[in-house]
Amino acid sequence: MDAKKILAAYKRQGARVETKARIKMKGKKDFSLWYTPGVGVAAAHLAKHPEDARKMSIKKNSVAVVSDGSAVLGLGSVGPYGALPVMEGKALIFKEKGGVDAWPLVLDTHDPDEIVRIVKAIAPNFGGINLEDIAAPACFDIERRLIEMLDIPVMHDDQHGTAIVVLAGLINAAKIVKKSFKKLKVVINGAGAAGTAVAKLLLAAGVKDVTLLDRTGTIHAGRTDLNTHKKELVLLTNPRRIMGGLAEAMYGADAFVGVSGKGLLKEEQVACMAPRSIVFAMANPDPEILPDAARRAGALVIATGRSDYPNQINNALVFPGIFRGALDKGVARITESTKLRAARALAALVSKPTAAKFIPDLLDPRVAKAVARAVH
Amino acid sequence: MDAKKILAAYKRQGARVETKARIKMKGKKDFSLWYTPGVGVAAAHLAKHPEDARKMSIKKNSVAVVSDGSAVLGLGSVGPYGALPVMEGKALIFKEKGGVDAWPLVLDTHDPDEIVRIVKAIAPNFGGINLEDIAAPACFDIERRLIEMLDIPVMHDDQHGTAIVVLAGLINAAKIVKKSFKKLKVVINGAGAAGTAVAKLLLAAGVKDVTLLDRTGTIHAGRTDLNTHKKELVLLTNPRRIMGGLAEAMYGADAFVGVSGKGLLKEEQVACMAPRSIVFAMANPDPEILPDAARRAGALVIATGRSDYPNQINNALVFPGIFRGALDKGVARITESTKLRAARALAALVSKPTAAKFIPDLLDPRVAKAVARAVH
Repeated sequence: MDAKKILAAYKRQGARVETKARIKMKGKKDFSLWYTPGVGVAAAHLAKHPEDARKMSIKKNSVAVVSDGSAVLGLGSVGPYGALPVMEGKALIFKEKGGVDAWPLVLDTHDPDEIVRIVKAIAPNFGGINLEDIAAPACFDIERRLIEMLDIPVMHDDQHGTAIVVLAGLINAAKIVKKSFKKLKVVINGAGAAGTAVAKLLLAAGVKDVTLLDRTGTIHAGRTDLNTHKKELVLLTNPRRIMGGLAEAMYGADAFVGVSGKGLLKEEQVACMAPRSIVFAMANPDPEILPDAARRAGALVIATGRSDYPNQINNALVFPGIFRGALDKGVARITESTKLRAARALAALVSKPTAAKFIPDLLDPRVAKAVARAVH
Repeated sequence: MDAKKILAAYKRQGARVETKARIKMKGKKDFSLWYTPGVGVAAAHLAKHPEDARKMSIKKNSVAVVSDGSAVLGLGSVGPYGALPVMEGKALIFKEKGGVDAWPLVLDTHDPDEIVRIVKAIAPNFGGINLEDIAAPACFDIERRLIEMLDIPVMHDDQHGTAIVVLAGLINAAKIVKKSFKKLKVVINGAGAAGTAVAKLLLAAGVKDVTLLDRTGTIHAGRTDLNTHKKELVLLTNPRRIMGGLAEAMYGADAFVGVSGKGLLKEEQVACMAPRSIVFAMANPDPEILPDAARRAGALVIATGRSDYPNQINNALVFPGIFRGALDKGVARITESTKLRAARALAALVSKPTAAKFIPDLLDPRVAKAVARAVH
């Protein structure tokens, strides 16, 4: 469908999510109980016992999808209105896939301190906070501070949703190419929110050789232009101390994970990877390399982030289940172990991975349940 | 129903409002169009044309119900969790009565500057802002600043919702007691958010003699303890310069409007009103005087704010219609003329007002439509 038709469809549709009354207000008795005077009893009770909000209010099943619109898809910083359709799409999938009542909250500010203050202030309404499309490095600090501050789960989906689904994909891809998962040489193009989180989760899962690249090239100790977050990566990644660009990094690599931008990966770079290579070209909406080109250049296992190619590696496989599980079990933190369990659970849904299908489908009804079970 | 049973019902119920997907995500095509890559087209468009958010996003039909929990019902300052059930009840009625997608947003702060900053930051998601249960005098300043700042309607319901419904009630009550509406001597007990707005709207509607009381007594020029907002009232109200308490103010009054607290009006004070008197005892959940006692003392037209007495003067008659109309017509300001029109439209729904019924019922399906038509 071309852009014009898509836009027309959105204009026809209007909102993609609405509210629904869970009580029909039919008679005076309904108003007396669920409005005034009855609501006064609930208000007085929650003023004294705020912990019961999880039982007897919207907080029981609700998640805020919060973004400042600073890193939306491949579009960059598009502000609150540019971010709104994406957050609304997330809210739609939260409900359809996880039964979670998610509400979009784009913020008309990029100030990290203000974002933290706002999310803290609105937290009482929600059982969880899904941060979305907030640019690195601000996203790391915002997430860390909110996790420390709040007693509900806070997850920056671009980081951890992506990391979980990439890990799931790599676990199964390693089986297909018959290589040891932990011995994979992995190149991650993009050292922002997603790339950093993918690297850390792969390391936590036992992968030893992970190399990241930002726009300048590989992250290594010789770089003098690295911010605090990238300096931390120097200590954890690039064990062979590769200096240079994508050509140097891709030489002999087993897997490419693209969380960067359209067309950044060349066929010749895929061609010089190790035999039976893995290419996850996940830039949205346009991948780093098109699946056909990657295949031509010799890649054996190929995935993108899009719904219109096979093997979609997309956070939508993760966030509905993560928050479904956290809400059901009253879990306040999404820990490293939860992420590892969720990735393994996702991978296990494809019992015999092949190049044609190694990651579960977004339409697979088992996905959210399997991920939710991994949260505890 | 006693408090124990009410609380049990709320605990059984959990959330009273949820989200609903307006699109069924059945196939790959749905994900391609309504999620990635399709959503990228909508995002890029809204980044350039934010004004289209009203057509093609949740903003089209959504209202935030914002409260800092500083003046909830008769309970006072109960904080965000105490306020949550009330805001959720409003969201329920917004949907059931006005078809408006309202979301509760209680705020964990009482700082007016921060409340303004937060509402400004979250405004892109919403087509309107319903402020609720924010204490005077902070509520006046917060509302004024937000109205100036935002291009969507902002209404503090405790002020203007109450004022509109009281005006509607008094218009019809005057007919029943066969007095000229504009010549009514009106006593308003409570000079906070509701009392102030009621006074101003009655004056705008042509009533000449309005006297307000706060906890100290009547508002008059001799008082040295008045804040800026109450000083403004000195210039507008109490033309007979009544000094003293409720006993002094009620002597010879035609109508009492109570927006104060439980049991504050005595039978003997009703007894010394003018003949064929009007008593609106609207404190929630417990009125200033019970209807039976007011009748015994000689009141002819009696109303409360509760669902379990006849003639319920409640904002729920107003807010769903006001925002329904504003959203449908893209109205950015709820003006004084709109409020007057809305009150008259409400009053007109009872064609032959009697003491037994002079205000439309909350269950009357014509209410929200009539109020919505008045907004333009």
